[in-house]
This record gives sequence, C-alpha cells and structure tokens, in this order.
Amino acid sequence: MVNVGILGATGMVGQRFIELLGDHPDLELTTLTASKRSAGKKYEDAVTWYLDCKIPEIARNITVVDTDPNEVKDVDIVFSALPADIARIVEPQFAEAGMVVASNAAAMRMEPDVPLVIPEVNPEHLELVELQRKNRGWDGFIVTNPNCSTIALAMTLKPLYDQFKLEKVYVSTMQAVSGAGYNGVPSMAIVDNLVPFIGGEEEKMENETLHLLGDLDGNTVTPASFGVSASCHRVAVLDGHTEAVFIEMSEEFNVDEVKKSFHEFQGLPQKLDLYSAPAAPIIIREEENRPQPRMDRNAEHGMAVTVGRIRKDNVFNKTLKYILVGHNTIRGAAGASILNAELINEIIL
Amino acid sequence: MVNVGILGATGMVGQRFIELLGDHPDLELTTLTASKRSAGKKYEDAVTWYLDCKIPEIARNITVVDTDPNEVKDVDIVFSALPADIARIVEPQFAEAGMVVASNAAAMRMEPDVPLVIPEVNPEHLELVELQRKNRGWDGFIVTNPNCSTIALAMTLKPLYDQFKLEKVYVSTMQAVSGAGYNGVPSMAIVDNLVPFIGGEEEKMENETLHLLGDLDGNTVTPASFGVSASCHRVAVLDGHTEAVFIEMSEEFNVDEVKKSFHEFQGLPQKLDLYSAPAAPIIIREEENRPQPRMDRNAEHGMAVTVGRIRKDNVFNKTLKYILVGHNTIRGAAGASILNAELINEIIL
Amino acid sequence: MVNVGILGATGMVGQRFIELLGDHPDLELTTLTASKRSAGKKYEDAVTWYLDCKIPEIARNITVVDTDPNEVKDVDIVFSALPADIARIVEPQFAEAGMVVASNAAAMRMEPDVPLVIPEVNPEHLELVELQRKNRGWDGFIVTNPNCSTIALAMTLKPLYDQFKLEKVYVSTMQAVSGAGYNGVPSMAIVDNLVPFIGGEEEKMENETLHLLGDLDGNTVTPASFGVSASCHRVAVLDGHTEAVFIEMSEEFNVDEVKKSFHEFQGLPQKLDLYSAPAAPIIIREEENRPQPRMDRNAEHGMAVTVGRIRKDNVFNKTLKYILVGHNTIRGAAGASILNAELINEIIL
Amino acid sequence: MVNVGILGATGMVGQRFIELLGDHPDLELTTLTASKRSAGKKYEDAVTWYLDCKIPEIARNITVVDTDPNEVKDVDIVFSALPADIARIVEPQFAEAGMVVASNAAAMRMEPDVPLVIPEVNPEHLELVELQRKNRGWDGFIVTNPNCSTIALAMTLKPLYDQFKLEKVYVSTMQAVSGAGYNGVPSMAIVDNLVPFIGGEEEKMENETLHLLGDLDGNTVTPASFGVSASCHRVAVLDGHTEAVFIEMSEEFNVDEVKKSFHEFQGLPQKLDLYSAPAAPIIIREEENRPQPRMDRNAEHGMAVTVGRIRKDNVFNKTLKYILVGHNTIRGAAGASILNAELINEIIL
Repeated sequence: MVNVGILGATGMVGQRFIELLGDHPDLELTTLTASKRSAGKKYEDAVTWYLDCKIPEIARNITVVDTDPNEVKDVDIVFSALPADIARIVEPQFAEAGMVVASNAAAMRMEPDVPLVIPEVNPEHLELVELQRKNRGWDGFIVTNPNCSTIALAMTLKPLYDQFKLEKVYVSTMQAVSGAGYNGVPSMAIVDNLVPFIGGEEEKMENETLHLLGDLDGNTVTPASFGVSASCHRVAVLDGHTEAVFIEMSEEFNVDEVKKSFHEFQGLPQKLDLYSAPAAPIIIREEENRPQPRMDRNAEHGMAVTVGRIRKDNVFNKTLKYILVGHNTIRGAAGASILNAELINEIIL
Repeated sequence: MVNVGILGATGMVGQRFIELLGDHPDLELTTLTASKRSAGKKYEDAVTWYLDCKIPEIARNITVVDTDPNEVKDVDIVFSALPADIARIVEPQFAEAGMVVASNAAAMRMEPDVPLVIPEVNPEHLELVELQRKNRGWDGFIVTNPNCSTIALAMTLKPLYDQFKLEKVYVSTMQAVSGAGYNGVPSMAIVDNLVPFIGGEEEKMENETLHLLGDLDGNTVTPASFGVSASCHRVAVLDGHTEAVFIEMSEEFNVDEVKKSFHEFQGLPQKLDLYSAPAAPIIIREEENRPQPRMDRNAEHGMAVTVGRIRKDNVFNKTLKYILVGHNTIRGAAGASILNAELINEIIL
Repeated sequence: MVNVGILGATGMVGQRFIELLGDHPDLELTTLTASKRSAGKKYEDAVTWYLDCKIPEIARNITVVDTDPNEVKDVDIVFSALPADIARIVEPQFAEAGMVVASNAAAMRMEPDVPLVIPEVNPEHLELVELQRKNRGWDGFIVTNPNCSTIALAMTLKPLYDQFKLEKVYVSTMQAVSGAGYNGVPSMAIVDNLVPFIGGEEEKMENETLHLLGDLDGNTVTPASFGVSASCHRVAVLDGHTEAVFIEMSEEFNVDEVKKSFHEFQGLPQKLDLYSAPAAPIIIREEENRPQPRMDRNAEHGMAVTVGRIRKDNVFNKTLKYILVGHNTIRGAAGASILNAELINEIIL
Repeated sequence: MVNVGILGATGMVGQRFIELLGDHPDLELTTLTASKRSAGKKYEDAVTWYLDCKIPEIARNITVVDTDPNEVKDVDIVFSALPADIARIVEPQFAEAGMVVASNAAAMRMEPDVPLVIPEVNPEHLELVELQRKNRGWDGFIVTNPNCSTIALAMTLKPLYDQFKLEKVYVSTMQAVSGAGYNGVPSMAIVDNLVPFIGGEEEKMENETLHLLGDLDGNTVTPASFGVSASCHRVAVLDGHTEAVFIEMSEEFNVDEVKKSFHEFQGLPQKLDLYSAPAAPIIIREEENRPQPRMDRNAEHGMAVTVGRIRKDNVFNKTLKYILVGHNTIRGAAGASILNAELINEIIL
C-alpha cells in the first residue's frame, strides 16, 4: 500500500477524493488537510458532508491537519483539491518536501515542466517529471489533470485525432452546478434559468485540449495544430457536464468509422488494468436522446465518458457532430487525479 | 378593428395568443376554436389555463367552436396554433373559405408558394401571397412564421448577413420546456437533467433560416448561400430559448461593428410602428453573464431578442461568437404570428 | 429459489422491482408481464428504462408476456405494479390460479380479508390469508402493501403507538414526482412551483395508517383509535417523500424517550434477518437540517425511513414534531412488496 | 409627495422596494443607502440587479450613501431592508433623527413599544407609536412588519379569529428560496431536494402571529390566546411561500362560512383605498390543485394571499384545513413595509 493524503479535504472535490479512496486496494488514505480552522478536528466534525453516501470509515476519524508539508508525515502521494491561488503556493512546497502531488488545481497546469495528463490520452507527458525535478531541485514532483470539461472533450478527441484530420472543434457546454463548488451557484441563479458564462472555462478548454493532444518533443510540449473554440454555460444539473461538439475535418469521413474509433479506444490505464480505469473509456449510446447527465454520469463508476447522437452534418459533409456527458467531479476531477496517481505508482514510483 | 380568431385556442400557444390579443387595439378577438370535445363550452370552462395572468375578459365568455371554417363567421384573420398534422388539413380550408391564416404550425412552412416570414427579416416574401392565391384558387391565403428557435437566430443573423460575409453558422441551443407543450416534457426527464435531442428541430433551424434570408426571385425563394448546423437540447427552463452561436465569416471582422450592426437593426415593423413591434428587435447586454432566459425573455414584452457575450474567437479570427435569448412562445410563436398579421393588415388587407 | 414474476414490469415501479430483484438470493425472476403491445418482445426492447443503473442481466432477455395467469408458468409469487383499475380485475385471477400476489396496487388494500401489511408494523395481519383463501376458494392469495407516503409514516408511528398515547396526527407531505409515474407530473407544473394536491392521497394516508396499526381480532381488523389528518403536496424532487409530522399525545412525553423508541425499533424482518430488511428500520439524524430527500432517500438501500428534527412543540407540551424521509418507489413501493414476499416465503410458504 | 429612502437598497428586498416605489403616486424615492463599499456610486453601478424588470428610472441615477442618518437629508420615511444585526443598531438612529422607519427587519419586532403591524390585521397597534416616542425621546419612530411566512398566515387567521373559536393552529410551510436572500440557498442544496429547516422561522411564526392578533391594552399587547405550532421547510421555488394549515377549533364549523369569512374580509387599507392595498386581501381558488406559488404569487400585484383547498377534516369535525400562497418578498416584505407607510402617512403624519 502507498500512503496518500488529500489537500483541501473538506470541499466538494475533496469529498469525492475520500469517496473514491474509501476502499482503494493500493492507496491507503492516511492524511487529510484543510484550513487552519479545521485543523485538529476529527474529519467527521470538520466537514459538512455533501455526498449522498456515508463518510467512509477510513476518513471519519482522521484528525485534520493544516495544509502544510511539515504537518504531513509518511505520505507518498498527496491529492490536491485546493483553490488555484493556494495551490500555486502550497503544491511546490509539498513537491519540494519529497511528495508526489497529483493535482486537480489549475495553478500549475500550464507550467512547461509540469505534466498535464489524462492517462488514456497522453501518458508519455509524464516524462516531464524528470525535467521538473531537475529544474526545480525537488525530490517530489507535481502532476496535474485538466479542467473537468476539458477532460471529457479530450478523451473523445484522442481517438479521432489519431485517425482523422481535425481542423476546427466548436464545443458548447451545459455544465453542472457542482463544478462551481457547493456554494458556487445560488439557487436564485439557476432555477428556471441558466447562466451562459463560466469564468476562465472557455480559455481552459481551448488551451488545455491542444496541450493534451500535443507532442512532447524533448523538453517541450508542442500543442496539437487544430483549433478549439468553446462556449461554456451552466445549467440546473447537479453533476455531469454535457457538451455539444461540432468538428470540422479536412476530409470527408464515415460515421461508422468514427463510432468504431470511439468503440475500440483503449489507453494505457486499460492496458495496465489500473484499479480506477474504466473498462471502456468511451461508451456509445445509440438512443436518439442520449447521453443525458443524470442517466449517464455514473457510467463505469463515473470514470467513462458517454457519447451519443454521433452524426454527420446534413449539409457540411466534413463536419461531425456528437454529444458527450462526463462526470465532472469524478472523471473530471478527483477520479482524474487518482488515475494519474495509479499510473505514476505503476510506472514511476 | 379587424375580427380575428384562434385555431387551437386551448393549448400553450393558443393561450399566449389570447394573452397577447387581450387588449389589442386593432385586432378584435371574436372566435376561438378547439377540438370537438370543447366545442359548445365557454372558453373559461374549456381551458386549463396555464399562464400566470388571468384569462383576459375578452376571451373568458367566448363559446368555443369546432375547428371548421363553417363554424367561423365574420372573421378576417385566423391564427393557427394547431398541431402540424391537423394544420396541414385545416389551414387550407380556412384559406379557401376566404380567411387569412397566420400560422405558427410547421405544416405549410416549406411550401414554395406559402410565405415563411419574420417581419423584421423578410417582409418582401409576402409577395408570394398573390402566387398562392392564383395557384390554389383561394380567396384567403396562408402566411407562416418559423419555428421558435429559428426566429431568434434568424433575427440576429439578418443584420450580420446584410453587412458581413457569413460562411458557416454553428448553433447549440438550450431550449425551454414550454416549447414541447404543457405535457411535453415530464418532470422526471428534466429535474437534475437535460435532454440533448428535440425531434425535427435541428432540420427546421437549418432549413428555415436559409429560406428566411433567401431572395424571392419572381416566384421562388432561393435560400441564402451560407450553411447552418444546429444541435438542439432541452433544459430545465420554463420559457425562453438560449442559443450559443458560432459564425465563421470569410473575412476578418470587427466586434464593435457587429455590435453596431445589432444595435442599429430596424425592420419594417419598427418603421411602420406596428403595435407588437419591439422598439429594438435586438437588445445587447454587456454584462459578462447575460443574456439569461429568466432575466431576458420578457424584454420588450417578449418580442425582442437579447444578445450578449459578443466576442471574436481567441484563435480563429474570422469566427464570431455570441449568446442569444428569445421568448419561445411569444416572439417564437404567438407574437410572431400576430406581428405577421399586423404587417399583413397594414400592407395587404 | 422461489420463482417470481412482475405484473406491469415496464413502468416506474416495475423497473424498481427488477432493479431490486436483479441479484436476489432467494427470489428468482423468471417472468415479466406487460400490456399486449409489449407481449412477445424481449424486455430490453419493450421497456423505456428510466433508472440510472443498467437493466439487470437477469431481466434483459426475458420475453414479456401478457398480464394473464394463463401466460405465466412455474411462478410462485407475482409482484403487482399494475394500475388500480387493472389490478382489481387481474390480481384475483392470479390468486385463483394458485399464485401469491404481493401487490403494490391500491385496488384490494381495504378488502376485509386481504392483508395490508408492513412487515415491521403488522406482520400478524398475514393471518387473514387463511380467511381469504377460504372465503374466495383460491389456492393462492393476495397480500398488499400500503401507499408510499403511508408506509413511511406508519413505520415511525408504530414504536410511538406501542409506547405513547397518540391522540391526533397531523401530517403535511412534500412528495417526489416519481410517485405519479414517469409521465405523471409535467415539468411545466413543477419547475419553480409545487402542486398542493395529490388525488386520493390524503384519504389513503388517513385510512391505511389506522388499519395498519389496528388489531386483528379473529377475522376483522379494528382500526387504531387515534386520528390522522393529512395534507399532501407534490414538490420538485425526483425520489423520496418528506413528511412533516405533528402528533398530539394525551400525556406529556420526553423527547429522549421518543428517540430511544425510534432507535430501538426492530420488527420481525430484522429478527428473521430477511434479505431486504434494513438493519435499522428507522434512522435518526441529529443535524438541524436533516433528513433531506436527496441525501437520505437511499439509506439502507432505500429501505429505511430517516427521521430528524425530533422536538417537542414550544408551547403545546403534549405535541411531538418531527420530519421523515422515505424512498417512495423502494421502501414505499417495490421494496415493500418484496419484503412482504420475503416474510411470506419465510413464515407461510 | 412624501420623500422616502431605502436602507439596504442593493439586496433582494431592497430591490423589491425599488420596484414597488418606481411609480408610486405618494411616495417619492429620493435616497438609497448601502454599505460603505457602495457609497458614492450611482445605484445602477452599485447593484447587481436580480429582478426580471428593469431598474426603475427613478432609482438608476441616485447616488448611494452610507447607511447613516447624517447622510440622509429631507427624507420623511425610510424603509429598512437591513440585516437584523445592523438594523438593531441603525434603525433607532434614524428614528432618533426624526424619521419614520418602516422596517422589514426582525430586530425590533418584539420590542414592547414597537408596533408590529399588518394594516389589514391590527392597524390599532400603531397607537404604540406615542408610547415609543415618549419612552425613547425620539422625534421619529419605528414600525415593523412581520416575517414573510407569518404575514400570509396571519392575514388568513384574522377573519377566522374574529368569527370562529380557534384553539390550535398547525402550519407546515414550503418556502421559496428568495426568502434567504440571493445567495442564501445554494443550488446544490435544493435541486432534486428540499431543506426541512429555516433558522428561527418557526419561532417567528409562532410568536409573531399571536402578537399580531393580540389586543393592545393600554401600553401592552396581550397575545391571542390560541396556539401556533410551525414546521418550516425550503423548496425549489423562486418566489411565493406555500403553507398547509390545520386549525383545531373548539366548536364545529361550516366550511361555507369559512369561505364567506375569507371572501368578505376587508381591512383598513381597503376602506382607506390605500395605493398598495389589494382589492381583496384574500383570494379563494376553487380548483382542486390551487393555490400554486408560480401561478398565484402575483395575484393583486403580489399583495393578496391566495387560499384554496378549504376543507373540513374527514374525521376531526372541528378541524379546518386549507392551503395558502403569498408572495414572500412583496406581501411578505417590501410591500408590507410600504403598506405600513401608506397607512402611517394617512393616519399619523
């Protein structure tokens, strides 16, 4: 067993980490950190538990400590569910102290020597770890996963990018309120309404996607050469981001080949049979009205992306359209970091 | 005053017609039709009233008649809120009987001699009325308005089409449940969920939009020569369709000129000062998180389209992006037919 | 293993039966019935599956048959998820044909020789089975469970009734939309709204509760002698009924004793360790804002009732107040019938 | 015209005050206060406007000042939409400075010399103003209105209390999220859920109701002698509180007489024809499924309470049951204070 901790364990994503680590066969949850206000309390007393499962036994009685590497002992990997501004300061301290930081925070994602990784998409970017350690003189290192809406999109683009010629991707999202944190979206803002804006989200989708599909060439990631244009919107859904994708290719394509490409897609986590890896990273639904967030977000324990309505545009015969749903706080956050850690544990540690 | 009637007066759109005609200065509501089951009843006894205003006095005591031209006396214009399959049979009967049919139904929209009109966009298509009467030997005639989601899109495309070079339009909708009728979307389908499919909607948006912006050349409408690709989705909003629009132009453009184009847009209804015409057909919101359906659907009594987040894509410098909101059962249905009738009343009758 | 079938297997409650029987250790699902329209199809082709789990393997390939005892072979127990009007005709036919009918339908509940049973509350009422068989000359028999909102209430009243002197119970419900079936509550009726009426529900709660807590005296159930007054309302919740309960006792009481009474409550299913029996039929939450339907409906796999805010009225010192949540389609419907069947299997068959 | 100001003008209730005062014939809005952060800004720049109407012209350009009587000139009446803790400090300062404070805040409601008034219910309690001025040596004075859920209940109890013998009132509420302020209820807490607790609300309903219906005897209000027991719950409704009411009387009663009592109810505002007074304070709906918050909250511009399902209990023949809906931020807050001010303006100033 590898000892792991969670930085920022009381928030929404922190709770998902705990849920997913509750009975993990290889990762032993031993440490939980939170703000100074919570330090010293038992986790069950420090947290307002939002999930509809019980607090896993393993976490209930852990005494929460301050988010400070000096407070964290005998831990190999820490998962970061910290806000970006705190992550920027604290994550390097944990790496310097020798720990692996598997971070869901945005702070370090676009640093040139920090791998931004989805294990099914670009596991080879983990090679940057060596450079990072060397550059920064750290014993540990930081690995990040992308933004929630990016992960689901990039997982579906990976097999297409390998097999077809993508030119432009337009994506319009309908994102769940949990993505903004428990208090992020007031009910007054979303009942009988939607909010067609999420700060920073479009830029993340546009940049991170190309970085993920980019080539690691020595010490540098060269972004993929097509373009992504996003429009991001919040709707009255609790969990599960839905995305309407339009892809302009440079050649005509066959819809059945697209489906085959999705269907056969397997990444390194599937080959290595990692514990949290979904058997199928992409699930295809053939019903005319799927995927739907409430019905599909939990596919493969929330770790698969479900795709449907895969169709060629009626007029533009080089344009592919489909809808995807991915669980934003599992596959798009806590589960993504855990899968990164499982991969690191398998091939680096 | 012109006497008017409503065909299919008890449904959602029928009720909106009544609400809007309740105190109309030029159109006098004298007739309401419904299915045989309701015929003979006073309207207030025949209807399950869904709107949160009271039933207008003018309608309350009208005795409902069967949807049959023989039952409708002394009426100049009938508004059709009929289902498409019934409309296809009944609307021609009313036109043959000498009445003007201002229809919200889809049945006759794409008939080559039936005008499909938004008064601000293509009033000149009303010239087809002459051909229609001649072709069919009718004393009356049929004029249609487009589908709800098409209207809002086409109103914003009109000024752009006149001033910029549009190549491709990608549009992703987040549509209100009222668009499916009162019983159309079960709560089990939409609470904590969305449905990424609306039957026939994408085809309507793709075809009707180009027809509306097409040229009437003698007896034929030649569709506009750019392309529209739609992805249509239902969300937990009562009224007001939201659309995320991506437009590829063939040249670079200036965002301020786009805004100016929206801002200065005026159509024939504004010039003629028609009763239901919004002062500004397009309202621009500069807040980063607007337009929102609950906040903006009722702008100009539900007859304006509100546009926001007008921006150039970060990478594709010929791609314009914006969000629009339009009231689907007012501007997108009953109000659209009434504005058509007001225009006909002014320039044809 | 006992072979079981489901009558009306394609609806909401039918699907819950299938979900719960998917891996049942003692009950082997072999037969599914539905309307003639579905007969002859494989279940997965006949059903529009609404639950967010997959269709259990055991049901997927069963060929649906008409709801007719002649079509049902080698089955010991049938679960009825039929509408009341059909149940009234069909359930006796199945009993006559020798099968045990464990029914969730309202049709036969108040027949004097048909047991209306919650296993934790009044298992002794099953003695009526003998009378029923004799009266009607059937080889099989019918056992019913109460209405969804009644079950949750009656489970909490049972320990109180045994220990305290109840005079009047006022109950105000906030019920989930699933209780009305998938198409029962249109989204237009419930988004930004509630509906303060559910046909027949108040009468069911008022009558069934007293019947359940009544004494079986020879061949007759004498209803319990206190009173129940209900006000029933539908709110925008998918699953899980919430009830605000006010109880006037004839003597002062101690809140801690009430909690103790709830906490220690065990019924026959717990003693017999029936498969679907919750370890604790009543769960107490001490947080000031619990129970909540989304958070508590799935407690003990949806088979427990969760109670909170147990308090004495500020002024009326003989009035107890509390809030309860129960899963309406599990504990309140399919799970209730299954627990009845497990009890019958243990003590009668 | 009387000059008026609003204390705490940028919040939800502050905005309702502005909406209602936008075109008031007797009250001229001249002053808006907010926190120091907003002071010095034009109102339209200081506020995040949440209502779906436009900011009234009269308010748009008012320069916001700090909530300090020294900053407020030439104002006769100030409306207080302040939080209770600030109100407790600031409202006396404004009264001391000679202004009439019509407060929606809870801080001063239960002070023995501060009138707690609903103009239709207990206008005679305004006589306490003399005592208050004398006690405290103020030129101005404070008048309060009750909590939102109390107002709607008390308005329906008033005619019953005058005509029938009430013993106990049990009330179970289903309250709108706007009652908690714009950010008060996170969407994560209420989508597919409800919250069966609102801090302090039950106590307010229980105490304020009896105080309102109590007799002013010289200098003291003696509370009415029946009892009120409340259970308060938050549901996914934007505006409009719904309450299920059970009333035990000490004698049998006739439902038609109850309806007559509601129907004929008129208070002083109706007799004086005050501008904001609803023509009918209580509206009766006879449909089996009304009142509903979205359909009925705006009755009489949000100033009436709508009552339905008026019925005698099936068993307890001295128990009356009904459902009511009232608009919580209009009749239950801003509109209540304004009606108080109109009454004061008519009979005191």
